[in-house]
Amino acid sequence: MTISIFGVPGLPEIAAGSDLAAMIAAASTAEGSPIANGDIVVVTSKIVSKAEGRTVELDSVTPSPFAQQFADAWEKEPAIVELVLRESRRVVRQVGPVLITETRHGFVCANSGVDQSSSGAAGRAVLLPEDPDASARGLRRGFQERGADVAVIISDTFGRPWREGQTDIAIGIAGLAPVVSYIGEHDPHGHEFLVQAVCRADELASAGELVKGNLSRVPVAVIRGYDWEPDDEASMQDIIRESERDLFR
Amino acid sequence: MTISIFGVPGLPEIAAGSDLAAMIAAASTAEGSPIANGDIVVVTSKIVSKAEGRTVELDSVTPSPFAQQFADAWEKEPAIVELVLRESRRVVRQVGPVLITETRHGFVCANSGVDQSSSGAAGRAVLLPEDPDASARGLRRGFQERGADVAVIISDTFGRPWREGQTDIAIGIAGLAPVVSYIGEHDPHGHEFLVQAVCRADELASAGELVKGNLSRVPVAVIRGYDWEPDDEASMQDIIRESERDLFR
Repeated sequence: MTISIFGVPGLPEIAAGSDLAAMIAAASTAEGSPIANGDIVVVTSKIVSKAEGRTVELDSVTPSPFAQQFADAWEKEPAIVELVLRESRRVVRQVGPVLITETRHGFVCANSGVDQSSSGAAGRAVLLPEDPDASARGLRRGFQERGADVAVIISDTFGRPWREGQTDIAIGIAGLAPVVSYIGEHDPHGHEFLVQAVCRADELASAGELVKGNLSRVPVAVIRGYDWEPDDEASMQDIIRESERDLFR
Repeated sequence: MTISIFGVPGLPEIAAGSDLAAMIAAASTAEGSPIANGDIVVVTSKIVSKAEGRTVELDSVTPSPFAQQFADAWEKEPAIVELVLRESRRVVRQVGPVLITETRHGFVCANSGVDQSSSGAAGRAVLLPEDPDASARGLRRGFQERGADVAVIISDTFGRPWREGQTDIAIGIAGLAPVVSYIGEHDPHGHEFLVQAVCRADELASAGELVKGNLSRVPVAVIRGYDWEPDDEASMQDIIRESERDLFR
């Protein structure tokens, strides 16, 4: 099995209401590598958010007294702090200016995923999609309508405790079960796997980043040749760890 | 840019003293895809450990009283608990039977990376390589001697806080700087990246896993077509977060 991974460049600037599946399909066709049956399409969450209108002009945000205090103490933008808090359901760590939060979706990340980069304008922030699984399912339907039965992963860039640097991981998925379990299977010497379950959604998102890059403005990657079975029930709920199973809540 | 990723199957069982670079080069040539200049070779830590003799017969291990107590309490193998403790410099979390430790290298993972699966025999455990960067450099030299200037990543399978499932990440590297920083660069609208640094070593390790798999016994992946500059100073020290910068120590 050889997997190939390539980016889809040439997308126009995405705005609220953009038909992302149509634009990605057109751009991939224009590049000479149209999206095809069996592909996995990895889409950076930022363009999904922008297409869904999940952007906020900072001057429209009234910070709470707490957000204002926090911003003053650490020389942060008060409106950004306010948005980070609104997008969170829990502050996991607050150390100095750093806010690690749990988003309403259940993701633990810096700043609830609120980001000003590549937002399309100065003074504008982008929030994570409201329901990234639904976003992924919508994109999948859009590709299916154009004749390509694909899986879709919405990716975002997260840090990892104990490690420097960030990697792209999955925050939304459609068509592909995100975790493959080997639990109960045996190695050739009879040793039983007790915990092994591969989070392939995160591995695929990371693989996609290798051709995307943050400055090169290629927000979509296509992974071709990976062997997978369609699963219409796929959801990030298989990845988000229940509180009682988590050692680092 | 299109990246291609393929596994190197057909390796013989690895034993202490095996010349891994020679065996991988031979297997890749036999498969018709010889390792070539510019490739990134991702090698599962387990075969590196086995080649380096980092295996232990469990009946040779005398558990400490603490290891014995812990094993009794949670129905674990006392010798395994003993090895996990010996390989660690700190227990990060101990919740029920689960031991999350910091290894002597500075990696935070379950059971100090001690594992019985694919160890080559029942009653045998495999430890992480003593110095995975040195292992990677040795493999890189081995490929260079055979005419291929490549980067080498030693990968292992780690869980991630707050997420289900494990992904392959890097524990040793040679030839390729593991982290690429965008800090101080600007997006097209002038927004400055303040924290962005991509841990591409982990992304490459994850990408490699997509063609390896745990049961298919393909312990080596080749990533071809990724654009990188050789860096002889590359080291995992760029990834391991200093205690004072870490929010989850």
